[in-house]
Amino acid sequence: MTHAAISAARERDPSVTLSNWQDAPQNRWAFAHVDELVPTVDVRRGRGDAAAIRTKPAASAALDERVPELAGFLAGSFTDAFMVLQHGEIVDERYLDGFRPEDRHLLMSVSKSLCGLAVGRLVGRGLIDPQQVAGRYVPALVGSAFGDATIQQVLDMTVAVDYNEDYRDPDSHVQAQDRVAGWRPRRGNDAADTYAFLQGLRKSGEHGRVFQYCSAGTDVLAWVVESVTGTRFATALGTELWSKLGCEEDADITVDSGGFAFANGGVSCTLRDLGRVGELMLRGGLVDGRRVIPEAWVTETIRGGDPAAVASGSPFQRVHPKGSYRNQWWVTGNERGNYYAVGIHGQFIWVDPLSDSVIVKFSSWPEPMTEEWNRSHAAAFGTVNAALAVD
Amino acid sequence: MTHAAISAARERDPSVTLSNWQDAPQNRWAFAHVDELVPTVDVRRGRGDAAAIRTKPAASAALDERVPELAGFLAGSFTDAFMVLQHGEIVDERYLDGFRPEDRHLLMSVSKSLCGLAVGRLVGRGLIDPQQVAGRYVPALVGSAFGDATIQQVLDMTVAVDYNEDYRDPDSHVQAQDRVAGWRPRRGNDAADTYAFLQGLRKSGEHGRVFQYCSAGTDVLAWVVESVTGTRFATALGTELWSKLGCEEDADITVDSGGFAFANGGVSCTLRDLGRVGELMLRGGLVDGRRVIPEAWVTETIRGGDPAAVASGSPFQRVHPKGSYRNQWWVTGNERGNYYAVGIHGQFIWVDPLSDSVIVKFSSWPEPMTEEWNRSHAAAFGTVNAALAVD
Repeated sequence: MTHAAISAARERDPSVTLSNWQDAPQNRWAFAHVDELVPTVDVRRGRGDAAAIRTKPAASAALDERVPELAGFLAGSFTDAFMVLQHGEIVDERYLDGFRPEDRHLLMSVSKSLCGLAVGRLVGRGLIDPQQVAGRYVPALVGSAFGDATIQQVLDMTVAVDYNEDYRDPDSHVQAQDRVAGWRPRRGNDAADTYAFLQGLRKSGEHGRVFQYCSAGTDVLAWVVESVTGTRFATALGTELWSKLGCEEDADITVDSGGFAFANGGVSCTLRDLGRVGELMLRGGLVDGRRVIPEAWVTETIRGGDPAAVASGSPFQRVHPKGSYRNQWWVTGNERGNYYAVGIHGQFIWVDPLSDSVIVKFSSWPEPMTEEWNRSHAAAFGTVNAALAVD
Repeated sequence: MTHAAISAARERDPSVTLSNWQDAPQNRWAFAHVDELVPTVDVRRGRGDAAAIRTKPAASAALDERVPELAGFLAGSFTDAFMVLQHGEIVDERYLDGFRPEDRHLLMSVSKSLCGLAVGRLVGRGLIDPQQVAGRYVPALVGSAFGDATIQQVLDMTVAVDYNEDYRDPDSHVQAQDRVAGWRPRRGNDAADTYAFLQGLRKSGEHGRVFQYCSAGTDVLAWVVESVTGTRFATALGTELWSKLGCEEDADITVDSGGFAFANGGVSCTLRDLGRVGELMLRGGLVDGRRVIPEAWVTETIRGGDPAAVASGSPFQRVHPKGSYRNQWWVTGNERGNYYAVGIHGQFIWVDPLSDSVIVKFSSWPEPMTEEWNRSHAAAFGTVNAALAVD
């Protein structure tokens, strides 16, 4: 079956299994139905009314006129849904191949950026000190790679850890973590659950020097959140973030057999609700004038990390030469000041302060991530930003 | 850990595993968190506002005065939540041990009664003829126990099938079905999924003569629903029933590795939303004056099946001597005309037409079902009904 033949709207793609759901073409259906493949726990929006997002009438047509290549780009980049917010209004909203406004889509590593915001709020509440080491909050991590890493180092991914993040290698740490999380069939000697897995990771050098993208770091942050709130991560993410945004729908997050929520990549939510996260960043941590995330936290995040920590020949810096990573967000360092959250297979929150706009995109790329995909999306988003700025 | 020490509100009971979650004391936490243990699919409530249910002020206190033994009965019968509706108003609503109004609780075989209603609606729409055999709608079932059974026989559980429904026997069919459904760890030679499992069940005699409670029959009905609607059962249950009731929350239902929803026992929903199902029955299939289920279907269901088909020495008839089973509901044949939906470990919708009331109870009994539990609950519900009738 071809990728194009599979729609998120299909009632069930019978070819989907726990072994192949992250691959094309099965990922098109699977990314919209993760709760049918892996156990999940709700991230509650709370019981109040959703904060309505206004829609600018006939806006999509206007954007197509200004960016005539947009429709072709979206169709050619395995898009499941796409939205642009400007000045807090929806100026473009599209659902492709049957994906619907009420459907949740897997965020992959955009999940990390949500975790970063929850940590920011808890820092603001005085529950977490970014200069303390993770082992102080989670004694079980002492002796692991993360035990003596500061929370800030974990947030900025400058922890030196023996961790292979090759999504295509069955012997990599990241695939092992997938298996432990219930995302792939287990092997006999896998760790019992993510708590055990994290304790088994080993330090590989000095922390704080070099940017090393390591998914497990976010799970360490989630464990710290559990420790300081006394609740599970999914509960805390609901309390500290999701219930504060005026969301329309609950999010959910996958959980492993030990009840650990897969903070680094397991959140699913609707397109509009993810747009609300971008809006939160644009408004400096405010939602409808109410303080949700400390302003300083948002400011520091947007300012970015140390570009020198990132390998200059890395695919990221080949696209964004001044790029850095801060508090679980990617900061381009470009002249527009764009920053973003990104997940493999094409999940994005792209923020453009200059035009006061947010782009959200859900995709089911056949590849986890390539420099070309990253480059083409940055270029397309930049074109949209430039078109909006004409206003 | 004792049963009493485990609360549904616990963030996570670390002793819960896929092997023990249905047993006490783990079932207290697990029945409120099934989606964390087994993959699920949403049963959507639709996007409209919920139909508010009015609450009679200070009603619980009044009921306690009239039925002083009620609180003790609830505490002693592993109750997670309890509600009484009279004339469409909440006259009693209690949440115990941390279970909350927004939490979903596993319905077990109360799920069957929801499936029966969905079938009733599809009969009313002319999509299902109860006199046709199941094999006509699902050719893959021809040759199995159900291929030549009429839909009415399946609805009334008078299909003669080689099926052992002993919940405690690891070699029973019902435990095998649990494993296939993802509710227990698999064994090597288990069927690939429920579709395959159902095709493998064999006829054991003549259909239509003897009541034989067989959980698999409901899954056959669900497969028929999928066939005639062209959608999966969870979608159909949402479209035909859940979205018509004014529910406050989505329900969900567990799914196996083949995407088959566990129609016979896998639905979870909130207490109030389940109360809406009882109200639907009391109003003869109407919701706020709108027709949802054909009146004749509700009338026939309430009239009951053939009590002579039920073994007179059975635990059911020892409690309800004129009891019968019709369209996936239990009908007591008693002088009050009570009928009910029941699931193992203490899930109930109990309808009392005389006092125009509905009782809903979620529990986590340590036993799946005993004659004594069944008897004590019928007695307690009868006492409440009698107290309400004084009005």
